[in-house]
Amino acid sequence: MSDRVTAVRGDLVFCTDDPRASGFVHVEDGIVVSRGGDIVANGSAQRIVPTLPAGTEVAHYPGCLIAPGFVDAHVHYAQTEMIGTPGGRLLDWLAKGPYEAEQKFADRTHADTIARAFFDELLRNGTTSALVFCATYPQSVDALFEEAARRNMRVIAGKTLMDRNAPAALLDTPQSGYDDSKALIARWHGKGRAHYAITPRFAPTSSDAQLAAAGALRKEHPDAWVHSHVSENAREVAWVHELFPDRADYLDVYGHHGLLGARTVLAHGVHLVRRDFARCAETGTALAHCPTSNLFLGSGLLDLAGALDAGVRVGLGSDVGAGTSFSLLRTLDEACKVAQLRGAPLDPLTGFWLATLGGARALGLEERIGSLAPGHEADLVVLDPRATPLLALRTARADSIEDVLFALMTLGDDRAVRATYVAGALAHERRP
Amino acid sequence: MSDRVTAVRGDLVFCTDDPRASGFVHVEDGIVVSRGGDIVANGSAQRIVPTLPAGTEVAHYPGCLIAPGFVDAHVHYAQTEMIGTPGGRLLDWLAKGPYEAEQKFADRTHADTIARAFFDELLRNGTTSALVFCATYPQSVDALFEEAARRNMRVIAGKTLMDRNAPAALLDTPQSGYDDSKALIARWHGKGRAHYAITPRFAPTSSDAQLAAAGALRKEHPDAWVHSHVSENAREVAWVHELFPDRADYLDVYGHHGLLGARTVLAHGVHLVRRDFARCAETGTALAHCPTSNLFLGSGLLDLAGALDAGVRVGLGSDVGAGTSFSLLRTLDEACKVAQLRGAPLDPLTGFWLATLGGARALGLEERIGSLAPGHEADLVVLDPRATPLLALRTARADSIEDVLFALMTLGDDRAVRATYVAGALAHERRP
Repeated sequence: MSDRVTAVRGDLVFCTDDPRASGFVHVEDGIVVSRGGDIVANGSAQRIVPTLPAGTEVAHYPGCLIAPGFVDAHVHYAQTEMIGTPGGRLLDWLAKGPYEAEQKFADRTHADTIARAFFDELLRNGTTSALVFCATYPQSVDALFEEAARRNMRVIAGKTLMDRNAPAALLDTPQSGYDDSKALIARWHGKGRAHYAITPRFAPTSSDAQLAAAGALRKEHPDAWVHSHVSENAREVAWVHELFPDRADYLDVYGHHGLLGARTVLAHGVHLVRRDFARCAETGTALAHCPTSNLFLGSGLLDLAGALDAGVRVGLGSDVGAGTSFSLLRTLDEACKVAQLRGAPLDPLTGFWLATLGGARALGLEERIGSLAPGHEADLVVLDPRATPLLALRTARADSIEDVLFALMTLGDDRAVRATYVAGALAHERRP
Repeated sequence: MSDRVTAVRGDLVFCTDDPRASGFVHVEDGIVVSRGGDIVANGSAQRIVPTLPAGTEVAHYPGCLIAPGFVDAHVHYAQTEMIGTPGGRLLDWLAKGPYEAEQKFADRTHADTIARAFFDELLRNGTTSALVFCATYPQSVDALFEEAARRNMRVIAGKTLMDRNAPAALLDTPQSGYDDSKALIARWHGKGRAHYAITPRFAPTSSDAQLAAAGALRKEHPDAWVHSHVSENAREVAWVHELFPDRADYLDVYGHHGLLGARTVLAHGVHLVRRDFARCAETGTALAHCPTSNLFLGSGLLDLAGALDAGVRVGLGSDVGAGTSFSLLRTLDEACKVAQLRGAPLDPLTGFWLATLGGARALGLEERIGSLAPGHEADLVVLDPRATPLLALRTARADSIEDVLFALMTLGDDRAVRATYVAGALAHERRP
């Protein structure tokens, strides 16, 4: 990374804290200046432009919003090409779709192809960081991290651990899962912008022995992440109770093996209740809210307000392939709808926070990504409130930045992403 | 309308009957031939092309699907520019959004501007017919029908009847509402492709006297439509019970005044139960299912399977402005999600039927629109299963036409609409 200075100009929108604690910032005609990939200044363009070193390139997007790149807190890259594959509810769908698609990732060439398509989609949608499930095969993890490195993206990922209740071709063993994860941690964790996540798929597909091995790994690598699923579907929850009769509840299966904590992110939590949220908050365990997926599989409606009020860190997950879009704008549209059905509307600033600094905080990366504050990495998305004729018509009558953001969440998609910057460098630009 | 012959070539998909009764047709490399705006033949291109009159223009869309234009069974054109405006649930939202937006339609120039934008959106999304709420002002109806006539589109619309419980500027009276509707019927009903709908907004905003006047109008014009809302939101339902203590239930308010029947279309029906569906089926009353709206306002989840099983005719409504998209593909995505949440998945052929011939049948227009069968009007949509990189990746692995349709419903939007034809003439073409 050179120490080249770059600057992106437009209307800045970002959080410095939870917007419910006044942490939202809006600067009309602002500018974000980065050096060597890190943000060194932000504020009024009028004030800052004259101070820039001679010859600084300024990318100017009049009428557009400059925001932190979106953070996808839960996504399966090995399910990219099977997005939108029907198959009933969770347990039936897994068998029909993902378990077939993921077997192809034993082939490194296929994994490379899909990794490229995956990152193309992320960037097209303004997502600059993600917490990613790979397949069980270590080579599927190498493919993902190599492509992420080529694009210089901050990504957390890991090999799926799964030693039962799935097709034999996808299974590892407690020992091989441990060994492969350990080798991948050595190879990738902390290299450039890569982080490793110990990744048991979910309780039903890991034996107690495998969960214990995952717990041991976490102890040996306390700075690695843990990434799994919890309490997505009612039949799944009942199955977990059958499989783990000695545990108090679903969360306790992970807790028993030392898998809850400040770097643990669990997707869904649709059927968690107040007591569970309290345990997440106490242990620092974060949740990834995946509304398009929860609707697509008919899993149910997360009590997002309950989780946030309990102090749980929550990010937003596309959860492709059960999720139906890579766009966190589309994901926010459905997060708002789920919240409406639950009778606790999601306001646009909290939604924006979940997709940026809130998501970064859920991943424990809020010091590095998710904001335009100096010291953060210059991962940016440029949003165009007039990207389509309908958006233009609608935002022409918007009377506040909150309303513009709400319109983008309701009507926007990848077309609203005019450009995406990774560590200060242009990584995607929408063809007009 | 000239008797010019035009032909559109691609993979044909259409219904001749409910697909659950084997009414779905798929012709690979097919062609639809129209003369003077009506379909005169469809079938294999190889067979039909040699029989075409010399000099017939053939629009060829290799790899695309040629389908009947979509039928939007419920939409408010006067809410176009306020799509995606938050405001809580139904009754609060009405006061904050629509009632303000609709007052601008007293101004004919504004109505003309929005009517143009509205039809642009319909055609961009492949929708060629719609059942439309206008504002209370007769000039808002003229603006809509004049623009529809310019585009030669088959449209049913009417002036909103509303004489209480809304801002004074929007109210009519039983007499003025009757007189204005009567004059509009004389001016528009049956002119070209226009049909008139007697349009009480919903029970809470019409007095018994106004509903009686609407019933009288229907008796005087038995070939006119009736268009209203029913049972969308729990608080609304409770309010109707308070306002009409002598009626058995919400449907009965309309039934009492002779407003149920074969040309009546009621939007939503979210809280209707088996007994209500039976009454709809008996009277021939149709429902418009509006899932994006029902989610956006948190209204609830229609029992679509229950309605269909009871023999109710059901169409699909975008319900813009509470609905969040003009696209019936996006609407089908959320119809599938609502169905999943209810535990009764919507299969792609039934979804496709709802958006085409099923919708036409709900509007009582199944002899004219919604199919590619000869005798129907040549309103067509050309769908591109490779419209976006993600759609192309996903549909490359589709193993059936059902799967291609499902992928289009899940991932498609206006970009999947390559072209739209109205009565045989090109009316929209996507800029690549």
